[in-house]
Amino acid sequence: MGEGPASSPRLAIVLVGDELISGRRRDTNGAWLAEQLFARGVELTGIHVVGDGIAAIAGAVRAAAGQAELVVVGGGLGPTPDDRTREGLARAAGVPLAHDEEAHAAITATLATRGRTPTEASVRQALVPEGGRWLPNPVGIAPGLALGVDGARVFAFPGVPREWRALCEAHVLAPLTAGAAAHVSTVWVAGIPEGEIMERIGDLPALRVVELASYPHDGEIELRFRATGDERVARAEAAREAVVARLGPAAFDPPPGGRIEHVVVGALVARGLRLATAESITGGLIARMLTAVPGASAVFPVGWVVYETAQKSAQLGVDAGLIAEHGVVSETVAVAMAEAALARADADLALATTGTAGPDPLLQAGHAPVPPGRVHVALARRGGAPRTLTLTLPLERTLVQRHAAVRALDLVRRLLAEGAQPASGG
Amino acid sequence: MGEGPASSPRLAIVLVGDELISGRRRDTNGAWLAEQLFARGVELTGIHVVGDGIAAIAGAVRAAAGQAELVVVGGGLGPTPDDRTREGLARAAGVPLAHDEEAHAAITATLATRGRTPTEASVRQALVPEGGRWLPNPVGIAPGLALGVDGARVFAFPGVPREWRALCEAHVLAPLTAGAAAHVSTVWVAGIPEGEIMERIGDLPALRVVELASYPHDGEIELRFRATGDERVARAEAAREAVVARLGPAAFDPPPGGRIEHVVVGALVARGLRLATAESITGGLIARMLTAVPGASAVFPVGWVVYETAQKSAQLGVDAGLIAEHGVVSETVAVAMAEAALARADADLALATTGTAGPDPLLQAGHAPVPPGRVHVALARRGGAPRTLTLTLPLERTLVQRHAAVRALDLVRRLLAEGAQPASGG
Repeated sequence: MGEGPASSPRLAIVLVGDELISGRRRDTNGAWLAEQLFARGVELTGIHVVGDGIAAIAGAVRAAAGQAELVVVGGGLGPTPDDRTREGLARAAGVPLAHDEEAHAAITATLATRGRTPTEASVRQALVPEGGRWLPNPVGIAPGLALGVDGARVFAFPGVPREWRALCEAHVLAPLTAGAAAHVSTVWVAGIPEGEIMERIGDLPALRVVELASYPHDGEIELRFRATGDERVARAEAAREAVVARLGPAAFDPPPGGRIEHVVVGALVARGLRLATAESITGGLIARMLTAVPGASAVFPVGWVVYETAQKSAQLGVDAGLIAEHGVVSETVAVAMAEAALARADADLALATTGTAGPDPLLQAGHAPVPPGRVHVALARRGGAPRTLTLTLPLERTLVQRHAAVRALDLVRRLLAEGAQPASGG
Repeated sequence: MGEGPASSPRLAIVLVGDELISGRRRDTNGAWLAEQLFARGVELTGIHVVGDGIAAIAGAVRAAAGQAELVVVGGGLGPTPDDRTREGLARAAGVPLAHDEEAHAAITATLATRGRTPTEASVRQALVPEGGRWLPNPVGIAPGLALGVDGARVFAFPGVPREWRALCEAHVLAPLTAGAAAHVSTVWVAGIPEGEIMERIGDLPALRVVELASYPHDGEIELRFRATGDERVARAEAAREAVVARLGPAAFDPPPGGRIEHVVVGALVARGLRLATAESITGGLIARMLTAVPGASAVFPVGWVVYETAQKSAQLGVDAGLIAEHGVVSETVAVAMAEAALARADADLALATTGTAGPDPLLQAGHAPVPPGRVHVALARRGGAPRTLTLTLPLERTLVQRHAAVRALDLVRRLLAEGAQPASGG
């Protein structure tokens, strides 16, 4: 972005594959590389998606080479006749393809480690455009390629995401990182709507010297502070710290690739505490989020999905009179569910949800209709009063469930974060 | 695909937005339109993704116009100064922008229905490149645009997915469908690995006159039969029917946009049956899949997530001696869990899962280590013997859970499909 003098080279991406052009597969490689480049302050001029035709590949590579100093091509390097990126690159550069003995030996050696022998098809993968060179593939068979086209440096890597990422890291990102023009710091937020976050932090002076972007993830919001130029690391970190200080317990740091459930499981493990669940509106989603985290079995003994009203009494022993009096979607019933789960499970904490996801309002005799999106959450604990949360989520059914689960887990996260700090609340 | 004479026009897509180029948002609009075009036999020459710069937009539109007779541009039509698709189109066509009174009146009227008045910013949305025309937006505020560039017909639509789809449908897909060159029929398969499906159906003569594509969705596989030319509907349908006859109960038809859980909930509702769950390895995922379907409350009364071994006895009353004897990951324990859930819930069917998701093998005193990916599923029912399934899923943790949940639901689906048909099994 910006038209200023570019100190680092510009980059263009070309993605090859009929499956992308037919909508059969949605690209993740281009978006992944785009994100990596953005974090390093490298300007991406465009992403070109084309089918498997030689002319289409050659045309896209030449167009990309006209825009940027670096071009990275993904896909079309496999052994089958459909894989024509090699031919497309050769045509773009106006050179013939030649068999490369060294590439062939590398392919043969990799196949041998997998107990396979080269076929006629795999020999195709040893073809390299004249004047170019092959690049070893540390995690797969098809080698990468590097060559010059119209003054641009062009790389081509296999489209298998694991291979694409490994080769991008080694040949494109590592050299760019060495001269990176940007630094990005990150923090996550839960329990505050995205619009309100901006209202609460917009005046912070530390934000004036970074670029702030927010990425909503179904109820969790990731904030990124990107700084370029001098002292970029210090400025990005200062922005992050100012926001954490302002938002207090709403801000948190998941482990790499993790989300709020990873923070909750990590905090439970660290403190040796066990959490049970009693879910109605979230329908098992909280249990599913917790059990997706490796190591959850140490801290999550049991969960109930008491979806039907009668089952809240049958399985958890919630007083049917209480349900009739307060309505099944009520703070009172949420607390009763959480306390029943705590009593029945060998746990230190118990989280309960009740609500109505929609699409229709909930009708109960003797009570006003409950609009879709109304949710009550309760967190019961040994030796302390329960905590509760009432939400109104004007969203589609599965999003109501997802946001409710995130906010419920956030109640646990905040309680454990308090305990982890000596006193105070940021 | 193919170099044959094109009877329908070729199309190119241009997607505009810094958020796509920074990896902040992953495109869904291009992939969606690509899929729609493929189903209609329209050749897509490429997808060009560019940032919000006027020169970049103009360059991409001109390049696209050089490849295809139709160009569809998405995004950059909002009211803010960042939205520069109007300017980019004008530059591509070499014409100035002009205020369009009619477009302005339409924007003002739409805003009025939402209780808002036009701002200086919203007036920008009434700018139309000279010689082009504005297109009403039935679901949003920003109008679409149509104009000619270098002999190609260029459309530009807002990037909000709902608006993008509505305007693509109205102005691009409906006219193309009228002269559609392809027909696509679909069927879904569960319980057979993707590779084995091809082995089992590859020899069917009806497949020789269609193009077959398979789309795996975490344990469910969607097969699409695409036919072009004469009698394409009959040929696509004949291929579908031949595959259904060959695969028998493995084949099924979810409702539009639905998956296996929609089929299961639909079949339970249709037969007035109630299903309970007792999950260990799937950790609440089966309950979550069922409760994501509107109407699940009529057929899913309760589920247990008995994640810890001791809770299988504590909550469900599974004999601890049985667990010690057979190991917690065993068919015997899966059946005991399912039968206990059936007895405790007011249900007709109960589904149970036990297994080890990894990453580490399960170690239990007196038993051989259980490798990650081993899963036992049991389906108990009133008045019938339980059904069971043993799976070995060499996958990453969350995929083991996901595939196990799909296969467990498939056990229910197949049982209900049998009952629904007079006799026989395909």
